[in-house]
Amino acid sequence: MTLEDALSVVDKEGIALVDALRRTLDAQPGLPRRRSGFPVAAYLEAHIEQGPVLEAAGVTLGAVTGVQGSRWFAVEVRGEEAHAGTTPRSSRRDAMVAAVRIVNALYDATTDADDLLRFTVGRFEVEPGSPNTVPGRVFFTIDLRHPEEKVLETVTARIHEACERHRGPCLVHITMTSRVSPVRFDPELVEMVVGSAGRLGLSCRRMQSGAGHDAMLMAGLCPTAMIFVPCERGISHNEAEQAKPDDLAAGARVLAGCLVRLAGC
Amino acid sequence: MTLEDALSVVDKEGIALVDALRRTLDAQPGLPRRRSGFPVAAYLEAHIEQGPVLEAAGVTLGAVTGVQGSRWFAVEVRGEEAHAGTTPRSSRRDAMVAAVRIVNALYDATTDADDLLRFTVGRFEVEPGSPNTVPGRVFFTIDLRHPEEKVLETVTARIHEACERHRGPCLVHITMTSRVSPVRFDPELVEMVVGSAGRLGLSCRRMQSGAGHDAMLMAGLCPTAMIFVPCERGISHNEAEQAKPDDLAAGARVLAGCLVRLAGC
Repeated sequence: MTLEDALSVVDKEGIALVDALRRTLDAQPGLPRRRSGFPVAAYLEAHIEQGPVLEAAGVTLGAVTGVQGSRWFAVEVRGEEAHAGTTPRSSRRDAMVAAVRIVNALYDATTDADDLLRFTVGRFEVEPGSPNTVPGRVFFTIDLRHPEEKVLETVTARIHEACERHRGPCLVHITMTSRVSPVRFDPELVEMVVGSAGRLGLSCRRMQSGAGHDAMLMAGLCPTAMIFVPCERGISHNEAEQAKPDDLAAGARVLAGCLVRLAGC
Repeated sequence: MTLEDALSVVDKEGIALVDALRRTLDAQPGLPRRRSGFPVAAYLEAHIEQGPVLEAAGVTLGAVTGVQGSRWFAVEVRGEEAHAGTTPRSSRRDAMVAAVRIVNALYDATTDADDLLRFTVGRFEVEPGSPNTVPGRVFFTIDLRHPEEKVLETVTARIHEACERHRGPCLVHITMTSRVSPVRFDPELVEMVVGSAGRLGLSCRRMQSGAGHDAMLMAGLCPTAMIFVPCERGISHNEAEQAKPDDLAAGARVLAGCLVRLAGC
């Protein structure tokens, strides 16, 4: 994606990213506008997991080995509006039927035995949205994530297949709106996290991050890793977000231990 | 449904029917506010079909034998919002998955060989509607229609079954928001329409109305029937609505023929 394309993306209220950024920067003139000029020896980020894995396993720390890759898709299904009472099924081009058939098939096609694949349809809009009108248009998004690039590629092909196979008399247009490759963190730094946790007598497991983080961008510039602590029921980006003080302290202690070691003290 | 319940129904903007009615009546003080006091000998209504049947069959007139019954349902699916990247499928209570599974099963369960059953999901709203959030709530409507009350009853049971079977870890709440029994028009008046068309040399077929009409309410007060003419591709309640002048004239001639006969001239 070119920088120009990225900046011209609009949200559902029609606001372009470039305008939202400008407004944010103008409101806070102190914000840095470019990468710092000094070299970075290493980057270590502590964070709540934002997922349910550590809590469910009863483990205090995650030594994050990398961030799964993701692909976002926008899918538009075009049929034709019609009267719900008078139009026989055989005469309909019902965009809702096509969209539901497609999404249903994709739920079936994205069930993996090890439960690593993340497939989410989070936005799904039906037009005109009237109870007694056969929908003429459906727009929906797909959020797809997995640690392996080749799995993302396979599922991308399945998305195209499902749209073609289940569109019925409707037209379907698929756009890939975002594509982020999986990131692997620095193995030495990951093992430093594991070792630091061990010395402090804290339980720790190596794990992938499900969410995106600043560390993904730093990983291209210097040795990078992350430290996770459990959070309640995986809830985040929500007022109900909660983490135990003891777990937060454990994460901070491991972070401090690693920083001391990285500083050569 | 009691009158009080009906008047307190609110639309998606939160406006109650009673307030919308009051605003309409206040704006047009000349509108009649109650049923006329004089007896009605018969009621005959001419209308475009609002469906594709006559056009597809190449027939000029429909002698309408009745109006199919309808039932409307509002279905609410409640799950739990979660992060699309971090939450494994096995930990999700994805309201979108449940809603799509239910609607998909109902599309399968409402496919009748004679294509008389009308099943439409026209409104379908997903919350919070963010691409990277597992939906916590889905609200959708069902518009169901058929000429036979017992078929409406059977499909109502299937709706409840499908919601129970496919809800997964989510909760589903179904409300029947409207219920209109099928209406049969007066057989003598229907045959008068058929006879009038025949005398004018116009092709005519007996048929059900798919849409609701004023005639449904008049049918309880006096002998009632309707005359349909074709409209382009069944499109109605839409700027693209179109009917041929010759067809409209044919409908008006049959209406006039019947009125003369009813007036005893």
